Amino acid sequence: MSPSSPGPTLIPIASPSLEVLKQRRQRLSDVFTDPVLLWSGNASARNFPANVYPFRANSHFLYFVGYPLQNAVVYLEGGRLTLYMDNPSAASALWHGPEPEREAIAHHIGASAAFPLADLPLRAQDAATVLAQDGPTQQHQGSVLGRSVVAAPQAEGLDRELAIAISQIRLCHDAAGLEEMRHAAAVTVKAHQAGMRATPTASHESDVRAAMERVILAQNMTTAYSSIVTVQGEVLHNNHYHHRLSPGDLLLADVGAETASGWAADITRTWPVSGTFSPSQRSLYAIVLAAHDACIAEIKPGVEYREIHLLAAQIMAEGLVDLGILRGNPMDLVEQDAHALFFPHGVGHLLGLDVHDMEDLGDMAGYAPGRQRSDRFGLSYLRLDRPLQPNMVVTIEPGFYQVPGILQNPDWRSRYQTLVNWDRLAEFADVRGIRIEDDVRVTETGHEVLTAALPTAIADIEALMNG
Amino acid sequence: MSPSSPGPTLIPIASPSLEVLKQRRQRLSDVFTDPVLLWSGNASARNFPANVYPFRANSHFLYFVGYPLQNAVVYLEGGRLTLYMDNPSAASALWHGPEPEREAIAHHIGASAAFPLADLPLRAQDAATVLAQDGPTQQHQGSVLGRSVVAAPQAEGLDRELAIAISQIRLCHDAAGLEEMRHAAAVTVKAHQAGMRATPTASHESDVRAAMERVILAQNMTTAYSSIVTVQGEVLHNNHYHHRLSPGDLLLADVGAETASGWAADITRTWPVSGTFSPSQRSLYAIVLAAHDACIAEIKPGVEYREIHLLAAQIMAEGLVDLGILRGNPMDLVEQDAHALFFPHGVGHLLGLDVHDMEDLGDMAGYAPGRQRSDRFGLSYLRLDRPLQPNMVVTIEPGFYQVPGILQNPDWRSRYQTLVNWDRLAEFADVRGIRIEDDVRVTETGHEVLTAALPTAIADIEALMNG
Repeated sequence: MSPSSPGPTLIPIASPSLEVLKQRRQRLSDVFTDPVLLWSGNASARNFPANVYPFRANSHFLYFVGYPLQNAVVYLEGGRLTLYMDNPSAASALWHGPEPEREAIAHHIGASAAFPLADLPLRAQDAATVLAQDGPTQQHQGSVLGRSVVAAPQAEGLDRELAIAISQIRLCHDAAGLEEMRHAAAVTVKAHQAGMRATPTASHESDVRAAMERVILAQNMTTAYSSIVTVQGEVLHNNHYHHRLSPGDLLLADVGAETASGWAADITRTWPVSGTFSPSQRSLYAIVLAAHDACIAEIKPGVEYREIHLLAAQIMAEGLVDLGILRGNPMDLVEQDAHALFFPHGVGHLLGLDVHDMEDLGDMAGYAPGRQRSDRFGLSYLRLDRPLQPNMVVTIEPGFYQVPGILQNPDWRSRYQTLVNWDRLAEFADVRGIRIEDDVRVTETGHEVLTAALPTAIADIEALMNG
Repeated sequence: MSPSSPGPTLIPIASPSLEVLKQRRQRLSDVFTDPVLLWSGNASARNFPANVYPFRANSHFLYFVGYPLQNAVVYLEGGRLTLYMDNPSAASALWHGPEPEREAIAHHIGASAAFPLADLPLRAQDAATVLAQDGPTQQHQGSVLGRSVVAAPQAEGLDRELAIAISQIRLCHDAAGLEEMRHAAAVTVKAHQAGMRATPTASHESDVRAAMERVILAQNMTTAYSSIVTVQGEVLHNNHYHHRLSPGDLLLADVGAETASGWAADITRTWPVSGTFSPSQRSLYAIVLAAHDACIAEIKPGVEYREIHLLAAQIMAEGLVDLGILRGNPMDLVEQDAHALFFPHGVGHLLGLDVHDMEDLGDMAGYAPGRQRSDRFGLSYLRLDRPLQPNMVVTIEPGFYQVPGILQNPDWRSRYQTLVNWDRLAEFADVRGIRIEDDVRVTETGHEVLTAALPTAIADIEALMNG
């Protein structure tokens, strides 16, 4: 590099404009007037200190700073941002190449000033913060602030007020955030298409997972969460990929990309290993798809998300009665949570920088003030209970599962003994789990399905696999 | 599941037999008679607590237990192992499927007894341990042992003696460990072949990385470390993949698979984006390959690894003199560390359960007792300084790089001003970085290259890319 060179710059990624970032910072100062410190966090050691997991910056930091800086802290007050970060060491240039100096980074992110980390305690007094994810950063937070910092759901005082303020700001996305989510959605659609096409010649779940994640890696993105690609769809958080594929299996794939600046997509599809749904698979898939479509059709501002969930339950119950698996009046069945034997989770959640957006804040973001989780079997796992607002993005993901831990549970079995036709259910043994999940933006008057490019209809999926 | 079912079992992975595990435990008790506690560790949060990085168990735990249990502790004494681990919760079955009980796991890993974690403090007094990687587990270690546990390089007393004992045991691999490493090597070879084949139609580094990691994921393995796939090979730890490929570029790929039970491979190849090396690339590649081949040829028991490193330096210096890039007598140039301008790192390191095996113990494993790092520019990054022993596995990875941070550094530039023909060097501007790395087992009389199936010769690589 010549002496007149302007110096190294940050790795280019798609990130919000300075104007957008300044708007976000201003919105924060409009609702929270005390000073705020946000830590980006540090890479976590994998098996020895120098071998780390790929670094993922804290989501609140990413929202207001726009760039995944490592081991950086920002001080926000009155819409102005000050960066605290150390310059790269001389030795670092050998191992990591030329890296930008603090001043160059400050310029890039629109900071009004920049100082080394050692100066941070001078400014830290009385600042509010949100707990970081990794241990060393949590320790740094405690030592800089001179007090213990706890997870947001347990926080009190200013930290609690800050968490509430941030949850309000991040609840509805600006155009820059939505653009990132559209990008994540587009790549995720391609990953699912690749997974469907790879299945007929795949031998194991891992082959399909690899074909899907290849698409995401090729776009220089990462997965937003550990992929689920399994013939045991009834295991809801299944991160194993060792099963051999059999022609009669359904494969459930819940895989989403995350952009370089941290925005997530979250799509689930379920397809037959053979390329053709069996009659029993077809019947149950049609019920889940009906619930999926009906829920999306209802999405618009003002609608209670809890009602969307109950609509999914209602349609599932109706379908299962029509198929002869449940007995009785669908509305009564839902009131008794009989649908939850087969659909035990919530119909979806907020989506944004986190796949369960702002879940580090507990239910502050997901639940409207004054509301809390139900203890009803059919509602306790609902992650979102708010009226919908324009530019919220939610997932819609009804499912049907035969979970042994539920269906073989003696208590539930006796409670629902007469409401389930167990002999009829046995005819659907080749359906372990079906889920259909899309990402839906609430518009001013209705909704927009960000992931609509990926088919859900049986005929379209079969055509994609066999075409 | 029927009531008479034996209950869920662990996910099947290739892992050592109980006989092998008992031998390893017995060897430990032969050299370290005090009781030992080893923690497996916990998954680390990514952006919120429930969204974690893929769990990787502690390597010392894996060596003696053979299975990547999460949040487990083992007590080792006199060759006997006691498992401390909690049973899965009832709710866990819904989200994670049926999981084995503690007793079933104890049987699987050959434990003589098993207790819940709450019983651990009763047995913990006076036990030695090794610091875990993740924060919550480190806190658990401190609270269970009632004392602070520090990283092995800083440890004193029993913890230090334990680290030395483990480093001796893990230094030379048993047949079961070698079998795992052969498996990792075979998959890594296939990943590199896929990378070479994908390059001619790839547009960015990320496309090649994705093609390589797909092979590893499809085998249900993970990467042993963050892949390096870059046209900026002079950045030694380059984990970015955003550059567009140009026909004149060399692509350096340092990618290795890790088996399910934790054993690593570590291969680097450098190939031309176009499929054909340029004359300047060919000349420098030939020098690195000559060093690579000469070093491997020397590997046998009793040889000092430091001498292997110096041999690489010597051959690099000779080659660079022949090419007209360095001036002078090669032996003198090495004594002045002039080779290190272009080959600034060590020729390799130990390989095993960690890609830099046992690096969490500092230099305890890599350096023979009484030896320590040199402060010489050409030796300070050498990670291994021991006489070779049968069944050690080491990497051999000489390289040539044009690192601006070194070559533009005014101090070094003046120190080596007359020893480098800078005009001649400028003719090799299309070589930013070349490294050729293989994994080599020391045999009773010589060596075995575990990664020999992947070609190193220019003609073979060009044939693979264009075939």
